[in-house]
Amino acid sequence: MLRQEVNELLTQTGPDAAMGKMFRQYWIPALLAEELPEDDCPPVRVKLLSERLIAFRDSDGKYGLMDEFCAHRGVSLWFGRNEEGGLRCPYHGWKYDTNGQCIEVPSEPADSGFCEKIKLQAYPLVKIGDILWTYMGPKESQPPYPEFEFATVPSEQTFSSKRFQECNWLQAMEGGIDSSHVSFLHSGSLNTDPLFKGARGNQYNIADKMPFFEVVKHEGGLYVGARRNAEDGKYYWRITPWVMPCFTMVPPRGDHPIHGHFWIPIDDESCWAWSFDYHPTRALSDVEMEALEAGKGVHCEYVPGTYIPKANKTNDYLIDRQAQKEGRTYSGVEGIAIQDSSLQESMGPIVDRTKENLVSTDNGVIMARQMLRKAVTALRDKGVTPPGVDPAHHRTRSVSVVLPPEQAFEDVCKQDLEAAPGKPHTSV
Amino acid sequence: MLRQEVNELLTQTGPDAAMGKMFRQYWIPALLAEELPEDDCPPVRVKLLSERLIAFRDSDGKYGLMDEFCAHRGVSLWFGRNEEGGLRCPYHGWKYDTNGQCIEVPSEPADSGFCEKIKLQAYPLVKIGDILWTYMGPKESQPPYPEFEFATVPSEQTFSSKRFQECNWLQAMEGGIDSSHVSFLHSGSLNTDPLFKGARGNQYNIADKMPFFEVVKHEGGLYVGARRNAEDGKYYWRITPWVMPCFTMVPPRGDHPIHGHFWIPIDDESCWAWSFDYHPTRALSDVEMEALEAGKGVHCEYVPGTYIPKANKTNDYLIDRQAQKEGRTYSGVEGIAIQDSSLQESMGPIVDRTKENLVSTDNGVIMARQMLRKAVTALRDKGVTPPGVDPAHHRTRSVSVVLPPEQAFEDVCKQDLEAAPGKPHTSV
Amino acid sequence: MLRQEVNELLTQTGPDAAMGKMFRQYWIPALLAEELPEDDCPPVRVKLLSERLIAFRDSDGKYGLMDEFCAHRGVSLWFGRNEEGGLRCPYHGWKYDTNGQCIEVPSEPADSGFCEKIKLQAYPLVKIGDILWTYMGPKESQPPYPEFEFATVPSEQTFSSKRFQECNWLQAMEGGIDSSHVSFLHSGSLNTDPLFKGARGNQYNIADKMPFFEVVKHEGGLYVGARRNAEDGKYYWRITPWVMPCFTMVPPRGDHPIHGHFWIPIDDESCWAWSFDYHPTRALSDVEMEALEAGKGVHCEYVPGTYIPKANKTNDYLIDRQAQKEGRTYSGVEGIAIQDSSLQESMGPIVDRTKENLVSTDNGVIMARQMLRKAVTALRDKGVTPPGVDPAHHRTRSVSVVLPPEQAFEDVCKQDLEAAPGKPHTSV
Repeated sequence: MLRQEVNELLTQTGPDAAMGKMFRQYWIPALLAEELPEDDCPPVRVKLLSERLIAFRDSDGKYGLMDEFCAHRGVSLWFGRNEEGGLRCPYHGWKYDTNGQCIEVPSEPADSGFCEKIKLQAYPLVKIGDILWTYMGPKESQPPYPEFEFATVPSEQTFSSKRFQECNWLQAMEGGIDSSHVSFLHSGSLNTDPLFKGARGNQYNIADKMPFFEVVKHEGGLYVGARRNAEDGKYYWRITPWVMPCFTMVPPRGDHPIHGHFWIPIDDESCWAWSFDYHPTRALSDVEMEALEAGKGVHCEYVPGTYIPKANKTNDYLIDRQAQKEGRTYSGVEGIAIQDSSLQESMGPIVDRTKENLVSTDNGVIMARQMLRKAVTALRDKGVTPPGVDPAHHRTRSVSVVLPPEQAFEDVCKQDLEAAPGKPHTSV
Repeated sequence: MLRQEVNELLTQTGPDAAMGKMFRQYWIPALLAEELPEDDCPPVRVKLLSERLIAFRDSDGKYGLMDEFCAHRGVSLWFGRNEEGGLRCPYHGWKYDTNGQCIEVPSEPADSGFCEKIKLQAYPLVKIGDILWTYMGPKESQPPYPEFEFATVPSEQTFSSKRFQECNWLQAMEGGIDSSHVSFLHSGSLNTDPLFKGARGNQYNIADKMPFFEVVKHEGGLYVGARRNAEDGKYYWRITPWVMPCFTMVPPRGDHPIHGHFWIPIDDESCWAWSFDYHPTRALSDVEMEALEAGKGVHCEYVPGTYIPKANKTNDYLIDRQAQKEGRTYSGVEGIAIQDSSLQESMGPIVDRTKENLVSTDNGVIMARQMLRKAVTALRDKGVTPPGVDPAHHRTRSVSVVLPPEQAFEDVCKQDLEAAPGKPHTSV
Repeated sequence: MLRQEVNELLTQTGPDAAMGKMFRQYWIPALLAEELPEDDCPPVRVKLLSERLIAFRDSDGKYGLMDEFCAHRGVSLWFGRNEEGGLRCPYHGWKYDTNGQCIEVPSEPADSGFCEKIKLQAYPLVKIGDILWTYMGPKESQPPYPEFEFATVPSEQTFSSKRFQECNWLQAMEGGIDSSHVSFLHSGSLNTDPLFKGARGNQYNIADKMPFFEVVKHEGGLYVGARRNAEDGKYYWRITPWVMPCFTMVPPRGDHPIHGHFWIPIDDESCWAWSFDYHPTRALSDVEMEALEAGKGVHCEYVPGTYIPKANKTNDYLIDRQAQKEGRTYSGVEGIAIQDSSLQESMGPIVDRTKENLVSTDNGVIMARQMLRKAVTALRDKGVTPPGVDPAHHRTRSVSVVLPPEQAFEDVCKQDLEAAPGKPHTSV
């Protein structure tokens, strides 16, 4: 349970909000690289952290992300002509480069100096992996580029997607670090989804619905360990790293690719749920790629031409009560991603955390909130750089492992929880 | 005309509003029994008096009506699994019985006592007639079950429906006790609708557009008497009982079934218009049932899969100007129910009663408002139980009758205005 | 750039706003005459200056424009029966004439005097040209009828249309007096649109993208002169008259009809963009009429049965990026009207003028704002009748002309800028 002011502190991410300022300390995913597929392609409207922006790729392949609206009279640059090294407003021909700098005002003499004074707010936009990342904070505190393993492995080993989610980022993220709901909500999919099925660990997941949680801090966030019973008195551990503010990796299953997420605020009542699958040591197989592109695993199918899930609030997520009754899906909703989004969106745009009743399996959620709260106030009050900014914090991995009861995961798995190029991951 | 504060007093029905508290003194229709057709069927979202609730029917046929949202983290229980004596949240498996009592929290030890402490706000839900009724007020003032005649006759004698109406309950209800608009708005339907046509009284209705109103109080509400000229100096009386806060019965026509209504607030800008037809002494005929199910009389056709009328605001109620011009329908809108809702919705979500100009035929409306206002303040200020709570007040009937001029309806019709099992109704 | 309070002063046009009061000093276009095509035809809902009104044409061909809602209980008179000299509310039969006077209350005795006391707010509605005009201000300051030339020439010489625009009137109007955007936004259409192409002036328009602006006041508004280079050191002048508060005429091209616009507030976040084409000395040709009716020139195609453009915000104005890339259209949007509305709507419902950066080519816009501001405060503070009310101010024309450099347009073109029946217009 949170007091209302704490709920607001953690959920509001506009330019003036404390959490908004904290989000602006990080590199965050802004677009899929596929959204700007070639030089001089159409610009793309992007809303992030409540700011309306335009993304484009100029004639030289440079990426730009800047205010959506022309500095002249406020026309949306989405209608702009992307040509010859800049994006040109179609109203009076003002032109901007990828830094937001105005480089042409046709009505004014070139030597008037007017053009040089016009500059749109712009943010860096860089391609790392399949994703275009931005940093929306003050120039002086811009950190080095992100180093999440999924984004740095060779491209044939990784796949990313995003989907629109109609709720605040925090309740989506809380679902991501809450390993206990897998035994319920996703139970129907563990043995059927091509990107989940067949792993030995699935059986422990389904058999033990009362996991014990052990949550351990690391420099960039938390390791949320969920312990279930395995055979012979041993424990099946699933360890979910959470890196501040909104990165998680789901513990792996057998030799399947590892998946994970970001939840990036669009505004305070919607977010982009980013999902990736990668394999640390091999290319994704054709079968895997086909499944990923078909929206299996943690990905989804879309309304054509959009990143809006096909199963969404307007159609009650295509719930199938017969499938629910027969247990083919636990909630009647198909697909792991939509199972999550349907419930998270059902809580309302921003869930009222003054009314909740948390239990021991919510320890990961509770500690993440505490860590967020501490970091957001330390930044606000003392200018302290929050955990997760340093790329060293990104180099982590999720783990699933069976251990004898006397072993603590944080000791035994120390190495396994670190990303390392070419090193196989630890997965049961 | 009402002052704005009185308009607000009478129209606002949320949990904290005075009228909201008064509505919570009564049993009110919550769902049609057909919405929960069998044990363990899908739960149904219900919004009543601005509260978001979930209704379900458990494995033993018990009905439950409780908070829509799980006490754990706020997921909508509409996604729940209705199984083995309770409704189970699909996120982490918390389970509730029909009293809102949590009966299982899988992650917590059974002997922890945690589960017992979790209880959702719940209201009783009982089937009387074709309707599931609820009482949303304090336990200590819960009255006996309702005894409206239409709900207590054998099931083959009665038929109920509901439809969504996009305006405040009060302006819909005011239309229901306003017998004078029949001569205009519904005039085209009196001689064509299978559930209206052929009665001798219809001709008086159409011929005399200047009814005289005589409104008489009874313990539970009002008798609104509308007097029109009949032959030989006699009067045709139509007497509409209104039982607080929102029950009415339309005066009968010949041997047709009698119909009536409730208007139950969903929130302050929409309501459920409930409609019923019943015959006190015989089963409804096949012809009548066919007409009722086809949406004739005071019922309507729906957008498939919903209780939203097919002819609604989004399609201008399928108005047919040619039919209006030719007088086949008076307003161009087809069907008595939609003729009413189209005009009542056109007033806006909550009509501004500071601007109206009332006349003598509005006497029923005026007196009903006074009685509501008096009751709502007496409850608020002195805790007085309002009229209409006592089931004795429900046992009333509408009447249509031709009387000589010297006879007062309230004297002559005293018996006719009382519901009595097996007694034929008084109808012209 | 405007301060926020000035932006509000100029953009808010409800009944209590200062600019709303100024708009209520003028005759303004309310409907196309085609919307009320015959006596006793269906009434039409009209929202103007934030007031919800109903327009109708009675049995004698008289036009009425009055409050949408019946004085009795607030039903929308859109559902009314238009018959026998008045519009009758279908709820209880109250009837109104075109002056808003109630002429029948069926429930009340005819000699009660009640009916005479009921009068809806009503405004005059008169047909001049193809348009029904209204005046929504105080009776005592009602000016003579408008005398814009397009509305007073014989009907075969003129064509009018209107379209819904989803933004404040002012940013639409500012586009209309901003002659400089033609060289960019509309450049693709000048040589292809049947109502634009072939004029000698088009080439100057396209060749010189840096027009010099000379703006001259006249009694009713401004002449916005845009000077571009022609051959032999001469200048090509395009002179756009602006008559307060929102009338403009686009400078003509060759022998094409002259076109122009009004932008009339529906409310503060939407307006009617009115467009006309007329020829001062001849009937419009069949080819021209066909083009006009097909939505060419400054007109548009519609969503069937509405005045909403087919290409609109919901479908991203059917933007064609390939056509943009190839320069067939400059912004990718087809049609001059929609090229304008797409950009103006993209600025948001009311553009934030505190953020703009104006340049020399915005001089017309700047001076129009100053003139509006001066007039609105003079009316508010001292009751001064604003420019443009006097019909003499309406008798103006746009001009396009090539002049030697030493000649000032305001001297040479004095006569050409005046409307005069039968006199050919000055056009290059």
